[in-house]
Amino acid sequence: MHSHTTADLVVRHARTIAGDSVDLTIRAGRIAAIAPVESASTPTLDASGHVLLPALVEAHVHLDKTLWGEPWRANTAGPDLAGFIANERRVLAGLDVPIGKRAGALLRSMIAGGSLHVRSHIDIAPDVGLRHVEAMLALREDFRGAADLQLVAFPQTGLLTVPGTAELMEAALKLGVETVGGLDPAGIDKDPIGQLRTIFAMAERNGSGIDIHLHDPGDLGVWQIERIADFTAGSGLAGRVMISHAYCLGMLSLERIEPVARRLADLRISLMTSAPADIAVPPVAFLRGHGVNVCCGSDGIRDAWSPMGNGDALERAWLLAYRFDWGKDHELLGALDAVTHSAARALGIADYGLEVGCPADFVLVKAENTQDAMVRRPHERIVVKAGRIVARDGAFIGTVARS
Amino acid sequence: MHSHTTADLVVRHARTIAGDSVDLTIRAGRIAAIAPVESASTPTLDASGHVLLPALVEAHVHLDKTLWGEPWRANTAGPDLAGFIANERRVLAGLDVPIGKRAGALLRSMIAGGSLHVRSHIDIAPDVGLRHVEAMLALREDFRGAADLQLVAFPQTGLLTVPGTAELMEAALKLGVETVGGLDPAGIDKDPIGQLRTIFAMAERNGSGIDIHLHDPGDLGVWQIERIADFTAGSGLAGRVMISHAYCLGMLSLERIEPVARRLADLRISLMTSAPADIAVPPVAFLRGHGVNVCCGSDGIRDAWSPMGNGDALERAWLLAYRFDWGKDHELLGALDAVTHSAARALGIADYGLEVGCPADFVLVKAENTQDAMVRRPHERIVVKAGRIVARDGAFIGTVARS
Repeated sequence: MHSHTTADLVVRHARTIAGDSVDLTIRAGRIAAIAPVESASTPTLDASGHVLLPALVEAHVHLDKTLWGEPWRANTAGPDLAGFIANERRVLAGLDVPIGKRAGALLRSMIAGGSLHVRSHIDIAPDVGLRHVEAMLALREDFRGAADLQLVAFPQTGLLTVPGTAELMEAALKLGVETVGGLDPAGIDKDPIGQLRTIFAMAERNGSGIDIHLHDPGDLGVWQIERIADFTAGSGLAGRVMISHAYCLGMLSLERIEPVARRLADLRISLMTSAPADIAVPPVAFLRGHGVNVCCGSDGIRDAWSPMGNGDALERAWLLAYRFDWGKDHELLGALDAVTHSAARALGIADYGLEVGCPADFVLVKAENTQDAMVRRPHERIVVKAGRIVARDGAFIGTVARS
Repeated sequence: MHSHTTADLVVRHARTIAGDSVDLTIRAGRIAAIAPVESASTPTLDASGHVLLPALVEAHVHLDKTLWGEPWRANTAGPDLAGFIANERRVLAGLDVPIGKRAGALLRSMIAGGSLHVRSHIDIAPDVGLRHVEAMLALREDFRGAADLQLVAFPQTGLLTVPGTAELMEAALKLGVETVGGLDPAGIDKDPIGQLRTIFAMAERNGSGIDIHLHDPGDLGVWQIERIADFTAGSGLAGRVMISHAYCLGMLSLERIEPVARRLADLRISLMTSAPADIAVPPVAFLRGHGVNVCCGSDGIRDAWSPMGNGDALERAWLLAYRFDWGKDHELLGALDAVTHSAARALGIADYGLEVGCPADFVLVKAENTQDAMVRRPHERIVVKAGRIVARDGAFIGTVARS
């Protein structure tokens, strides 16, 4: 880049993940050049002392459930899954604050952390109808200039077992929700093939992807992963299916998991883990070694299920490293990959990354290098979306239409 | 308190863990009163919007090993325990920066987080002699006004198997180190009774407590805990013994663990966990239910073993909650207890707590309540040691003699 060309922004002296110092020239919201800039008449950001990461990707969150910004509320959930679901219905039904306000406050915080792509599941059930969907569609519009939201129609209370849910999900897809959700086809619906048949048909009809919550344990869970693979192979959906949680893959032997891993890799079925520590998790390094795409997400954040979580994708990546005691450089970078490139691949994000021509979406983190950023997770970050600074040091300063 | 009395500091409107708003009057470095103050002529700190926690207690760290403040160094440890130990010897031997500088930088950061009591193990072995001990004793003097350090003579490379180590440990105790360390009596020294006989005799001779690193797994580990209980019962050391890590207690059935728990409770043997997630940990709630004192510590921080860790005791307590998926109010407060009262009990800290007459050592954390402080771990904290502010918002501003 030369100074006589017009650019939106020039970023100088940013340290790449590989360790080089680079200058970025941004034009029309995209990375126009990655080459030394001598001097610039355009606004220039001196990124000395910062590492340059691609936009962080939140692959799994439930924005519509959050109590973010609300006064502290003692957790009353449990004791079993049915109890958690029933408790949440009570808590959310008793709230006056609209979804858009709670979800919007959390989303601002997530963007401030660097998450510029967010996949949120949305509860769909006869008791709430399409209210959550409508609120989240409005929120997506409001935040269009600040973050890209993907939405999943999520049958939280069951699909086949709760009549009317499938019809509501179909209606949600017509309104603009792009992904079909599933939930423990065996454990919740008690009819695994029935649920999978329903959601794969719905996805094919609507040109949607699929994202299935699978908490079912051990052999029951892995058997369902094999059936999800069958349905993926039998449909046109290879590369557009994600299985979230999949604790079961951490419960059986690697010998048992290996052929499953090969099928997941062949069918480009992604896995998402929130890296919980009180239960088994998919053996990430092993699965990646077999070509499986594994990413990380927050799951619920400060909601009726748990008060934990803050939507900081860098912290989530660090928790993944913590979960597996990863401390080598390649391990720390592998953990980061779970909230950057692997997550972008899982979500099918076009033009993702820090290449010339990509949207100028990135995060500058004040750190010696990327490994240092991973272990310390500094809050000193500058977040850039389409060439515009949308957050600084934890504060969202972007533009939002309404909420 | 009335305004005509002289006080060092008055703290107003702090929220207690129980949720009340209180005023503290501090005189001669101690809490002189916990009662409403109408107006004060003494310096007054308005703690509105902050929760008042007792000084955080770091129950287990290795300050002499840290690489804190050093340029990033790719982790080269492994593959097995012997490899980790040998790697550390190489890394530390190649450093120019003295222990006091590295450990002091980390200690400042720990104090800034609110840790005012710190138990640090110190490597003692023929290859390093008493150099680490001397550096840590000097550091303790330097920081005397800012934090209380307890030191443990730790035979990192083995005790019986490395001739000369026991003599160096004994010499360290004479110099002022107050606790005798141990390390996998079976796994490292291959002579469990021999190591326990040596360290218990040394502790009795010197009036010291005991703190044993126990990584040995399953039945081998639990069998050693039973032997540690035997030696504790047979000595005058009940209430002065800690077992650190004790993964083994998480590897066997609760039925098997229950009688062991009863003995630990009877003999007031404390347990310390760093809440790792890639290995079993002691079942904390179960053990506490049986009266066992369990606390939390950081273990190594950014050292040759691992680049992870930052010495923030509040984050460590949060990791304990994360490890067990604790989200209920009593669970979050129970996690905090592992870095406050339980840790103080384990370390035998006199006059610990927020009672009238106790040293005015506490942390004000900007949060709605203690549970909120636990899940968010805000860096906005004011740390008070003996009535003087020693840190604010993550920056150490206390006085240190030299380093």
